Amino acid sequence: MKTLLKNVSLHGKIVDVLIEGNRFKKISENITESADNIIDGTGKAIEPAFYNTHTHISMTLLKGLGDDKELHDWLNEDIWPREAKMTPEDIYYASKFAILEMIKGGTVFCNDMYQYGEETMRAIDEMGIRGVVSKPEIDIGCTHEELEEKKKKVLDFVKYKNINENRIIKGMSCHAVYTLSDEFLQFYSDIAKENDMYIHIHACETKTEVEECIKKNGCTPIEHLESFGLLTDKTILAHCVHLSDNDIEIIKKHNTRIAHCPVSNFKLKSGLMAFQKIIESGILLTLGTDGSASNNSLGMIEEMKVCALNAKTQANSSKAGNVYDIYKVATENGAKAFGIDAGVIEEGKLADFVLYDLNNYLMMPNYNLISNIVYSAQNNCITDVFCDGKQLMSNRKVENERQIIEDFKKIAEKFKSIS
Amino acid sequence: MKTLLKNVSLHGKIVDVLIEGNRFKKISENITESADNIIDGTGKAIEPAFYNTHTHISMTLLKGLGDDKELHDWLNEDIWPREAKMTPEDIYYASKFAILEMIKGGTVFCNDMYQYGEETMRAIDEMGIRGVVSKPEIDIGCTHEELEEKKKKVLDFVKYKNINENRIIKGMSCHAVYTLSDEFLQFYSDIAKENDMYIHIHACETKTEVEECIKKNGCTPIEHLESFGLLTDKTILAHCVHLSDNDIEIIKKHNTRIAHCPVSNFKLKSGLMAFQKIIESGILLTLGTDGSASNNSLGMIEEMKVCALNAKTQANSSKAGNVYDIYKVATENGAKAFGIDAGVIEEGKLADFVLYDLNNYLMMPNYNLISNIVYSAQNNCITDVFCDGKQLMSNRKVENERQIIEDFKKIAEKFKSIS
Repeated sequence: MKTLLKNVSLHGKIVDVLIEGNRFKKISENITESADNIIDGTGKAIEPAFYNTHTHISMTLLKGLGDDKELHDWLNEDIWPREAKMTPEDIYYASKFAILEMIKGGTVFCNDMYQYGEETMRAIDEMGIRGVVSKPEIDIGCTHEELEEKKKKVLDFVKYKNINENRIIKGMSCHAVYTLSDEFLQFYSDIAKENDMYIHIHACETKTEVEECIKKNGCTPIEHLESFGLLTDKTILAHCVHLSDNDIEIIKKHNTRIAHCPVSNFKLKSGLMAFQKIIESGILLTLGTDGSASNNSLGMIEEMKVCALNAKTQANSSKAGNVYDIYKVATENGAKAFGIDAGVIEEGKLADFVLYDLNNYLMMPNYNLISNIVYSAQNNCITDVFCDGKQLMSNRKVENERQIIEDFKKIAEKFKSIS
Repeated sequence: MKTLLKNVSLHGKIVDVLIEGNRFKKISENITESADNIIDGTGKAIEPAFYNTHTHISMTLLKGLGDDKELHDWLNEDIWPREAKMTPEDIYYASKFAILEMIKGGTVFCNDMYQYGEETMRAIDEMGIRGVVSKPEIDIGCTHEELEEKKKKVLDFVKYKNINENRIIKGMSCHAVYTLSDEFLQFYSDIAKENDMYIHIHACETKTEVEECIKKNGCTPIEHLESFGLLTDKTILAHCVHLSDNDIEIIKKHNTRIAHCPVSNFKLKSGLMAFQKIIESGILLTLGTDGSASNNSLGMIEEMKVCALNAKTQANSSKAGNVYDIYKVATENGAKAFGIDAGVIEEGKLADFVLYDLNNYLMMPNYNLISNIVYSAQNNCITDVFCDGKQLMSNRKVENERQIIEDFKKIAEKFKSIS
């Protein structure tokens, strides 16, 4: 399969782009090779797609329930009673709908943690994006028997046959230091090492989490995770709002990655993450939306803008969180964190990309395209999305869009009330 | 002129809405009256439009120039040299384009402060929205002769014939305490009182502004403005990030209004405004985007979300900045602050409203419409916009849209470089 993109703007220069299989084959002026699919890129800019590195995509099913509540009330009254009612089928349809939202916002990857991960994998496979999927088990308040049962579930998922090894990776959810016993943390570490898996952890999201960990274990969550060998270059730490200088050193030393989630951190008043300090430390920083129950969006364009707002306020400097760093964090760094050979538009790279409509009113004046993408654009400025060389959105249309929406509406109906 | 909107959702109930002239005439089930224009509202929700209470709309011409710089460098290197080159024609075309952006985001009003305000008035008149327009003069470092010249300019604008008294109001820009001498402040106060004008002031935007005012005048900017009689119920104070408890008391006492600009405050690292405290004080709080040079958007939906994020973090409570308060601030309060009998969908009120597409992927699941508008929607969720009974956007199309964009592109060309 060959796709030829004609007369598209790349870094301000008009070029043709030839995609063969799942990679950029050639990028130059006037490519005359024949192709199965020829797309007119006039008035459009080709740019990398987004990589969303911390999600619970099925939680889109709970979007708008219990906003503006304290965490405890929200979980008890709105989230947990509904999560207990979710079936594998609900997760499948919710995942498909959430992926539709992601594609419409230019995102081609999620690092997802949620129940019934097998169903999310199925949805990712069918929708054509990439993903790392993991299923969390927590053992807070569990008996020994219950913990053994949970360990068995973890192993079941490790053995579960991956339906698409090209675009999907099975990961390990190691939920958080406050929901997992030492025994379970060590188990997770051993299994991840044995199976060379990505490890997805919530870490230092709130001040309370850090304080309670210090009280209980005499060390910070980062130090605690390190002691179990859970910090590796395949570990991604979500949030990291409250890090000590020593925590930053440790994360850097292990080449562990961070998924920054500014909207969720603001909405749940978790605090301001030290974006600039972490960027300057050399840690590989990436960007995530968290779930739509605490955002309430999976949009990476919006997340970039809020990322800039957080960075400047936290560092008390307008220079902090510049558009180029933020753009890289949302694109190239996200791909790199999961070993995806993409995130930039270059010959030989995987063909994950989007097209921006330069004639959209939000993209004007076009003095600085990256500034416009980070600060002014909305989903609608993106016309086309490709992942792994395959077109997932064409002129804002996604295949089976209406059906995906109708299926979702049907299952959402029953979550409106809890009774 | 009569418009009949059939089968539209209002607060979750399906109704018909009859608009006669510029007001809602009747809202009920099954209206059978004939009308000039019948619109099918199936699958849509009718909601108030937005009122943007602090703007410099023509600055859209400078969007994306010098982001992420310190204020002084940004003004000296990027903004002032270009502002000096602007002609009345530039302001006219830039205003039309900015209003196009506002309409596409559901906004039907701006409280605007910028040079060549007569041209902005002309653009507002032609585009069909409402506005209060004022022209700032500052006298920092001026000679006595120059100040007299500036006073003359202020009086010229006061005498300037308003081209549309139905939708446009001439206001007075009293720029800020740090750019105006005591003599000029008193002059502004006298002229505003004589002519019963709205007064638009930047106040307590930065900590430096407050500290320098205290050093120079022995009182806060709010106390200083009060001493000249500049705080009235027709005064709107933009920003108010740094208020003392006494400042809040004074603002409340005079029934003076505040325009909160959270995105701009974050981007210029001005600080977090005490949203919840001000709401609870009973002050009429409204919402503004500021100019696109420091936002970089005129979108009120995004501004509402960032308003929520600011409120929760500032108050350290998830309950602060709830969606209902924020929605009211962006709609009803904005209208109220400028004596516009609109902002709610009720019989007898002015017909300023928008329609949301409930089948848009961002508006689902539809558990809570207001939460979806504040936290999840984007401009594209709005299909239709009406102002003063007249349809300004129909199925996302605005009259002469292409021409407005082409005209803007032509003038923007010359601002790309300064030389």
